[in-house]
This record gives sequence, C-alpha cells and structure tokens, in this order.
Amino acid sequence: MLYLIGLGLGDATDITVKGLQAVRSCSRVYLEAYTSILTVGKEALEEYYGKQLILADRDMVEQGADEILKDADVTDVAFLVVGDPFGATTHSDLVLRAVNAGIPYKVIHNASIMNAVGCCGLQLYNFGETVSVVFWTETWKPESFYDKICKNRAAGLHTLCLLGENRKKIYEPPRFMTVSQAADQLIQIIQRRREEGEELGVTEDTVCVGLARLGADDQTIRSGTLRQLASCDLGGPLHSLVVTARLHPLEVDMLRVNSEPDALKHLRMIDSSTYTS
Amino acid sequence: MLYLIGLGLGDATDITVKGLQAVRSCSRVYLEAYTSILTVGKEALEEYYGKQLILADRDMVEQGADEILKDADVTDVAFLVVGDPFGATTHSDLVLRAVNAGIPYKVIHNASIMNAVGCCGLQLYNFGETVSVVFWTETWKPESFYDKICKNRAAGLHTLCLLGENRKKIYEPPRFMTVSQAADQLIQIIQRRREEGEELGVTEDTVCVGLARLGADDQTIRSGTLRQLASCDLGGPLHSLVVTARLHPLEVDMLRVNSEPDALKHLRMIDSSTYTS
Repeated sequence: MLYLIGLGLGDATDITVKGLQAVRSCSRVYLEAYTSILTVGKEALEEYYGKQLILADRDMVEQGADEILKDADVTDVAFLVVGDPFGATTHSDLVLRAVNAGIPYKVIHNASIMNAVGCCGLQLYNFGETVSVVFWTETWKPESFYDKICKNRAAGLHTLCLLGENRKKIYEPPRFMTVSQAADQLIQIIQRRREEGEELGVTEDTVCVGLARLGADDQTIRSGTLRQLASCDLGGPLHSLVVTARLHPLEVDMLRVNSEPDALKHLRMIDSSTYTS
Repeated sequence: MLYLIGLGLGDATDITVKGLQAVRSCSRVYLEAYTSILTVGKEALEEYYGKQLILADRDMVEQGADEILKDADVTDVAFLVVGDPFGATTHSDLVLRAVNAGIPYKVIHNASIMNAVGCCGLQLYNFGETVSVVFWTETWKPESFYDKICKNRAAGLHTLCLLGENRKKIYEPPRFMTVSQAADQLIQIIQRRREEGEELGVTEDTVCVGLARLGADDQTIRSGTLRQLASCDLGGPLHSLVVTARLHPLEVDMLRVNSEPDALKHLRMIDSSTYTS
C-alpha cells in the first residue's frame, strides 16, 4: 500500500491520528521536501514519529518514483506531504504510477493553505481562482496573476495568492517570498499600468490580508491596504497573501480582529463602498 | 481559551494529534451538529476521546453562544466541527463573541471538502467559486448555481458543488442530497433552458465527478457525464459533485482511475476537444 499522508501546517502534532498510525506501520517513509515547509525540521518529525524519514526532493519524486514505489505491493510505504497531499501541489503522477503498477493507494487528508486560509475570516466560498506569485528576475516579470486577481475581484471573489519559492537547481537553498515582497511586486504592476492609463481593478488601497506560518503557535495574520502590507514584516516563512473583493460585514469584523490600528482606520473608511448585505 | 477544532472528514481518528490533546484537556466539549456529519456517531467520538460531548445545534450556536463561552476565560472549552472550523461553514460569529468577551481563541485546522476534493485528481488551483445546490420545493426552484457553474466553466475553472442539507425545523431529521439528485436538478435546468433556446454552458454530456464519504474507508469517487451521474448510486452521505471545465491530460488520467467502464469510454470521446497542454 502507498499512503499519501498530509502533515497539516504547523508542527509534528498536526498530523492526524490516522496518519500517525499509518506512518508508524510503514517500512519506508518519504518526506516530500520541495513545495512547502513545516515550522519544525526533519529531525523533530523523526523523533516524534519514531521513524527515519527519507527526504524526497523534486528529482526523486519526478524521476525516482520507482524507488519510492519499490515493493509497495507487498509492504507499506508512506509519502508525507506538508499540508494536504492534493493541496496546492498534487501528486497525481506518483498516484498514477502506483495504479499502473497495481499498487493500492490511500490518501490521508489534512489541512492545507487552500482551506486553512478561511481562519482570517474571509469565507471560502467567496474565493475565486487561486494564483501563484513568482519571484521576478531582471528579464522575466510575468503579470498574469494580477489580471486573474482583477477578474476574481470584478466577480466579487477574493484571491488567495500562493507566494513563490524559487529554486532553480536542486542544491540551491529555497527562497520563500514574503508578503511584503509580493505586495511590492503587485504595486509595481499597478504603477506601470496606471502610467499606461489602464483602468485598475486592484490599487494600493485595496484591502489585503497577509498570513504567515498558518497553524503554527506563532502564526500571524495582518489585514491592511496593499500599501500597508508592502512595508510589514510578518517574520519567517511560509507567507500567503489574500486580495479581498466585496466584503460581507461579518468578514470586515473578522478582518478587524487581526488588523493593526492603522489598518483598522482604513478599513472603516472603505466600509460604505464595499459592504453588501 | 476557546478551541475551534476540525475533526476532518472520516472517522474518530481523523482528528489531529494536536486537536485530540486539546479535546482531552478541555472542561467542556461541544460538537457542532448541523452542517456536516462524520461516518461515526457522537457515541463513537465520545468513547475515542474519553470525553462527553455536548451537541450544539444551530439554535445553540446562534442564540446560546453565551452558554458555550461561559467561563472560557478561566477554563478551556472546545468546539468541534466536522471538516475544518473555517471550511464550508465559518464560525466567525462565535469567534467574534469570544474576542469581544476577551476570551482568547485558537483554531486547530483539519481537512475539509474544500481541499480534500483534490483527491479526485482535479487540481485545486483550477477551481473557481464554490456553489451550493439546495433541495427544490414545488414553488422554489433557484437556478443561480447553474449560472455560476457556467461562468466558472467559461473561465476554464472546475466547480465544487456542496450538496444541500435541508432541515427547516431543528427537530426534523437532516436530509442529505445525493449526487444523482443534484445531477437530476441540473439536468432539469438544462432542459428548461434548452427549450427556451439558450446557449448552454453545461449539458448532460459535461464530465462531472461524484464524491461520497470522502476520507472514510468506503469513500467512493465516480467520474462520468452528468447524465451518467444522474443514475448512479454512491451510497450514504455526504455527497459532493464537481462539474469539470477544461481538463489537463494528467487530470483526465486521474479521472480514469475512478471511472466506471462506460464513463471511461465517454471521457475518451471528449478528450480531443477538452485537452489543453
């Protein structure tokens, strides 16, 4: 059996009881180590699970899947994924290889940023398409995510922005994008398009929510305008950003709980234009 | 402290280790009992947790919040929610009452249908707005969810349909909608609009995915056309339905894993028109 097990978002104890039982029963346990991170390292997980973990980088999952699946028809193998196994990154390829090799598989779900983002108070069914914000380079500055955010917003839908992790070579350390870096890139797009006379679906005054280390004891949620978030420091990774659209009064009240005093002031200012019953 | 704890989607062991530790440390434990269900009952949860659970129906959560929050500033109280506390139903109101009363709160996340739906092989970032399908009555047959599905589909986005639970009075037993009932309502809308000469964004041949008891040992996933799903029997609740849009080849391969032979045939037929690279 191949178990795909979600680890959730915080620390070692965010695994489900069912997941922990499966991990402890498996003869080999792989830890997917390239799309996301917990606030604790591999060693802390190993100690808590009482199992050695084999780090599976992108190369191993994409080209060494046979190694992961070896003997999984006669023994149990676990593949651990931060968040949910079918969250922001899917592992369809590994599942399909297992199916084709006649190996049964079982998914043990957990929270991922795709649903845990709801804790900021914005309702999940008011979200549109999720977008990814990637690090710009000198010569490559894609803006398509801005257009998707505007499209969602025009339809009254919030946008979850997953903030990019760049690692061109597998031996490079990962670079995680902060909320302020993402807000800064968005503001650059807005400024450029304003100069070109475009009508803007999102501006520096659009209310956004920055989230850091969701599910961890020191998680931080900050609401404010895009401009305010461009200068905020939410600490260590992982960060995510939400660009809000039409806000329900209950959503505004929840945003206030997690607002800085100065952001609060701004939220009040925009109430009348964004409130809908 | 008020703990809002997600129970996940399957049985008693789908709670996280962190969540279980919190439940066992609390002096009162409420079980939210109106928006969703696990495959096990209250008694099984009580035995597993070693705690008595107080059932919280909609009336208690909406009007008896003071009772839930009583003394939560000096003792620990848990509020258990199937799925994630901020999944399909949010509990912002309870959180805001706690905040206003000076009671600290902590969310312990878990999987919800909003992210676990990814296990059918459709990628979560290709989903648009989530819709709810409610039971029709003789005189009330809303169709707005059909328009939202078409809008998502036109933008290349899949739609998760949460299937309604009707309970007008709190003493009525809940009625859970099946995938075939939801497909049947959709087909009625399609037929009516076809007669009126409307251009149809979704038809009886649109590929859909029915999901039942996600996360449970007997979970069932079935892909097929809307017409095929209208006559399928996926067993007991909870059911959900996904209406697909543009499909990536990897998504099609995953849908095939969970298809009936006849649905498979149909998927092959539509491949060429729906594939994008």
